[in-house]
Amino acid sequence: MTVPALSISRRLRNTPFTDRVNTAGVKSYTVYNHMLLPTSFKSMEEDYFHLKKHVQVWDVSCQRQVSVKGPDAAILMQRLTPRNLTKMVVGQCYYIPIVDDQGGMLNDPVTLKLAEDHYWISIADGDLLLWVKALAIGFGLTVSIEEPDVFPLAIQGPKSAELLERVFGPAIHTIRFFRFQEFTFEGQSLIISRSGFSEQGGFEIYVNDPDLASPLWDTLFKTGQDLQVRAGCPNLIERVESGLLSFGNDMTSANTPLECGLGRFCQIENETNCIGHEALKKGAKEGPARQIRSIAIEGEPFISPCDDKWPLFDGEKHVGDVTSAVWSPDFKTNVALGMVNKSHWADGTSLTIKTPQGPRTATILEKCFTDRK
Amino acid sequence: MTVPALSISRRLRNTPFTDRVNTAGVKSYTVYNHMLLPTSFKSMEEDYFHLKKHVQVWDVSCQRQVSVKGPDAAILMQRLTPRNLTKMVVGQCYYIPIVDDQGGMLNDPVTLKLAEDHYWISIADGDLLLWVKALAIGFGLTVSIEEPDVFPLAIQGPKSAELLERVFGPAIHTIRFFRFQEFTFEGQSLIISRSGFSEQGGFEIYVNDPDLASPLWDTLFKTGQDLQVRAGCPNLIERVESGLLSFGNDMTSANTPLECGLGRFCQIENETNCIGHEALKKGAKEGPARQIRSIAIEGEPFISPCDDKWPLFDGEKHVGDVTSAVWSPDFKTNVALGMVNKSHWADGTSLTIKTPQGPRTATILEKCFTDRK
Repeated sequence: MTVPALSISRRLRNTPFTDRVNTAGVKSYTVYNHMLLPTSFKSMEEDYFHLKKHVQVWDVSCQRQVSVKGPDAAILMQRLTPRNLTKMVVGQCYYIPIVDDQGGMLNDPVTLKLAEDHYWISIADGDLLLWVKALAIGFGLTVSIEEPDVFPLAIQGPKSAELLERVFGPAIHTIRFFRFQEFTFEGQSLIISRSGFSEQGGFEIYVNDPDLASPLWDTLFKTGQDLQVRAGCPNLIERVESGLLSFGNDMTSANTPLECGLGRFCQIENETNCIGHEALKKGAKEGPARQIRSIAIEGEPFISPCDDKWPLFDGEKHVGDVTSAVWSPDFKTNVALGMVNKSHWADGTSLTIKTPQGPRTATILEKCFTDRK
Repeated sequence: MTVPALSISRRLRNTPFTDRVNTAGVKSYTVYNHMLLPTSFKSMEEDYFHLKKHVQVWDVSCQRQVSVKGPDAAILMQRLTPRNLTKMVVGQCYYIPIVDDQGGMLNDPVTLKLAEDHYWISIADGDLLLWVKALAIGFGLTVSIEEPDVFPLAIQGPKSAELLERVFGPAIHTIRFFRFQEFTFEGQSLIISRSGFSEQGGFEIYVNDPDLASPLWDTLFKTGQDLQVRAGCPNLIERVESGLLSFGNDMTSANTPLECGLGRFCQIENETNCIGHEALKKGAKEGPARQIRSIAIEGEPFISPCDDKWPLFDGEKHVGDVTSAVWSPDFKTNVALGMVNKSHWADGTSLTIKTPQGPRTATILEKCFTDRK
C-alpha cells in the first residue's frame, strides 16, 4: 500500500513547533484533535531503538487541554468519570476514563488538578470540549470550560531527566510519577509533569505561550547534543509492546472501561455521580464479555498498518479483533492489541487471524510484552 | 512546501468507498470527522474544470449523521440552532448554524427532517455527537442520539441529474432543492437529497448499508461512462469562487453566525430556545464588528495552501485575516475568503496581505466571485 499524501489547510492546525518538526525531518504525520501529530522521523524502527536508549522531544501539542474552572469544577469532573477523584490533590495527575451514559468510552485523558477549583483534561483524539461544555450548560453548573493555548511538549526516553535537569535544574528529579510542578523558562512559569505516552520514562512540558516554543525547542537540542537528543513522536512499536492503548484505535465509545482493562480506574462499587455509573454497575456484576489483550502474531513483519479490525477466529467462529499490529524488532514477532471474547482470552490461547497478508497464527497473552520479559 | 505523508491507522477511518477511491487514483486525502476525505484526483485544477462541465462522484462519508430521535427531538433541535425550525416539514433539508452559549459556531450542518420526531444532522468537521448527546443528558430530554451507519455519496456537476435519472428513474427530477425523497437501489430504500458542497448542482445519496457502496459506485460509473463521470471531491477552487464556507477553515467557535454572514439563517428577533439566543441577540443589536468576505489577491498563483491566517493590513493596521486562498483559472486571480473588520469590508477596499510568498495587494468584494459574473 502506498502512503497517501496529506492535504494541508488551516482546519488541520499547525502547532507552534511545526517549523522545527519539519526542519527536524519529519517523514509522516497523522491528524489528532484537528492538529498535526508527527508519526515518524528516521523510520519507525530507528525512532524506536533511539527512544529506548536516548532522549526524544515530541510535539504533542495535539493533546489539547480542556480547562474546567469554577466553584462547580469538582462536581462536573466527577460526573465525567467513574474514577473516584475525591482524594486527588493539587499537583497530581490522574489517568481517567471518561464515559457516556451507557458507560461507553469517550476519551482516556490524563487530568491535572491545578487548584481546588481548576482542572486541565489533557485529551486523546476527540472534541471532548463539546461534551464537557454541553454537560455544564445542561446541568446548570457554575464553571467555565475553555481550551487554553497550551501546547504540550513531551520529553521521553531514559535520558530525559538528565536533559531536563540541565535546562530546569535539579528540582526536576523531585517530581514524582504522575505529579507536576511549576518551573521557569525565560522568566515564564511552565508546568512540567512526570508522564508521557511511552514506557521509557519522561516528562511533559505544558508550553503556555506559543512564543516560547522555538526557544525551548532550540535550548533542549543545544543542551542535549551529547545525549543524542532527537525529534521523536509516540512510537507505534513501543506503545504496542508496552500495552499502551490508543483511543480511536483500540477502544471507542462501543467499549466500556472494563472491556479496555481499565477496571482499576473505575470505582464502580461505591456511589459516584458519574453519568455512566448505573450502566457500568450493571456491567460490572456480570463482568465484561470481552477484553483487550496483547497478542503475538506469527510470520513475516506486516508491511501495512492495521487500518481496520483484523478478525480473530477459532475455526469458523469469530472471537475477537486486532486493532493495532506491528513488527517488533526486540521481541522478534508481530506485536498486537485487540479485543478478545472471554471464551478465548486465556493466556496462550492460539487463534487464527485474517490479515491483508493472509491468515496467521495469533497467540493471546495475559500480560503485555514488556511485562513478560 | 513538500506535501507530508499521512500515516494510516484505524483511528482515521476508511469508508465503504475507500477501495474504489484508491482505485480511481486519489492523489491526496484530508482527515475529516476521523475519516478519510479525498482532496484531489487528477489535480485540483483538472478536477475543477471537470466538475464544472460533467459529473463527479464524491465519497463524503465523513459527513457523519447525528440522529436525533424521540418525543423531545424537535425541542432539542431548536436548542441547537438560532434558525427557526417550526416551519420545517418532513422531507426538507435546512442549513443550520449550530452555536454554543456564547453564540460561537460549533458546526454548520445540513439537517434532514425524516419524521416529526426524527432528524439527521449531516455534520461538518467536529464531534457534534458529543455536544448533542451531552445536552440531551443535561437537559433530561427524552431523545436518543446516535451516529448511524450512513455514508453519504455526493453526485455533483451539471450532468448529475442525467446520471441519477438513469440509475434511479425520472422521479429524480422531482426532488426540489434542499428536499429529499426515498429511492430504491438493489431492493433497498435510500434517501437522496438535492444538495451538496458545490455550486454546480447535484445530489447526496445517504448510503445506509456499507454493502451497497461498491455496487452503487460501480453502477454509477458504468451508467455514466458517456457522461464522462469521474471520481471527485469537494474542490477548493470551486468552493472559494462560490463563497462556500468551510467550518474549521473560514469559521470556528470564535465566530458568530453573523460574522460568518449567516444572519439569514438566524431568527434572532423572535424568541427561540436556542442556547446561544441571548448572546446572539446582544450581538445583533450592534451588528458584527467583522464579517467574512470574498477577496481577490493579485500576483502569481499561490504555491502553498493557506495553512494559517494570512493577515490583512491597511498600512500598519491589522484589519482582517484570509483563511482560504487558491488560484482560480476561470477568474485569473487568486480567490480567497477571510474575516474583515467593518471599517474595511466595503466592496473594492484595497488592502495589503502578508503571505508566505510575500506581500500582495488584496481587494475586498461584497459578493462572491460567481455572483459577480
